[in-house]
Amino acid sequence: MTAIHSLKDLCLHELSDLYSAETQIIEGLPKLIAAVSNKKLSQALSQHLTATQGHLMRLDKVFDKLGEKPSGEVCAGMKGLITESTKLLAKGNSIDAPLLDAAIISAIQRIEHYEMAGYGCARTYCQQLGESDCEALLRATLFEEDEADKLLTRLALDEINLKAQKAIGASA
Amino acid sequence: MTAIHSLKDLCLHELSDLYSAETQIIEGLPKLIAAVSNKKLSQALSQHLTATQGHLMRLDKVFDKLGEKPSGEVCAGMKGLITESTKLLAKGNSIDAPLLDAAIISAIQRIEHYEMAGYGCARTYCQQLGESDCEALLRATLFEEDEADKLLTRLALDEINLKAQKAIGASA
Repeated sequence: MTAIHSLKDLCLHELSDLYSAETQIIEGLPKLIAAVSNKKLSQALSQHLTATQGHLMRLDKVFDKLGEKPSGEVCAGMKGLITESTKLLAKGNSIDAPLLDAAIISAIQRIEHYEMAGYGCARTYCQQLGESDCEALLRATLFEEDEADKLLTRLALDEINLKAQKAIGASA
Repeated sequence: MTAIHSLKDLCLHELSDLYSAETQIIEGLPKLIAAVSNKKLSQALSQHLTATQGHLMRLDKVFDKLGEKPSGEVCAGMKGLITESTKLLAKGNSIDAPLLDAAIISAIQRIEHYEMAGYGCARTYCQQLGESDCEALLRATLFEEDEADKLLTRLALDEINLKAQKAIGASA
């Protein structure tokens, strides 16, 4: 585990955590997209996957600007969130399709909120360290995470949750 | 794993997840509080622990009103977040005290964001199901999580991160 003896060390720790988190999302998100039934949700998540690949590239730029590399430590928080989302997929026939769509939104909003908290802290550290280019890159990602979260809320309220409510299954 | 065949089932799944999350926070938070050096942060987190106990009691009320019980399934997302926070504590002498305070804020903001996402979805499901008493209880907790997150951001910006920046350690 890397030692933390300065704000720059702490910032690098935070950035490495986000690097691992984004990498895990890029690996995990396609499985969730494949399980989605609703076309709009599928499109939104595919766009989010592309955005996430862009977020990882931004982190590469940030590390380059700081003259550093990610530590390679696995983000345990994101590992838990991905485990949680894959548990949903393992439910198979014990969850009806429109309900699975709603549950996937809930799981992904947890993932996005994790990133909002992480990028919020990382950009503050960069600002304090006078790393304004890095701060701007992280702020751009933070903005996109926030927008993605709002889009999912709108999709849930306008369509997905209503369809989930109409699902009539064994215990409805 | 409980089957999900209706919006009520999904709501109960979400509430059970939050029940496990709050229980894990009540268990994990005292260890983080014990590791904090800054008095204001320690007080804020102690108040948050008391609030968290209140959130669990609110969830008990919600389950009572719905005539149901939590599933007992462990929230894997929160388990990952708690693991991540305890990794910080395991750093021991390899992280200076003011930097540990800043890192603890970052870890707890991730935990609060998890809850914001979860309560946001759960209250929406209750609203749709016409469970207005439950929705009001969940909304009250959501509001408090949001306020706790803002308080930590203020503490970080006004004091903790500045002290962290002044920490001069081995690699500063």
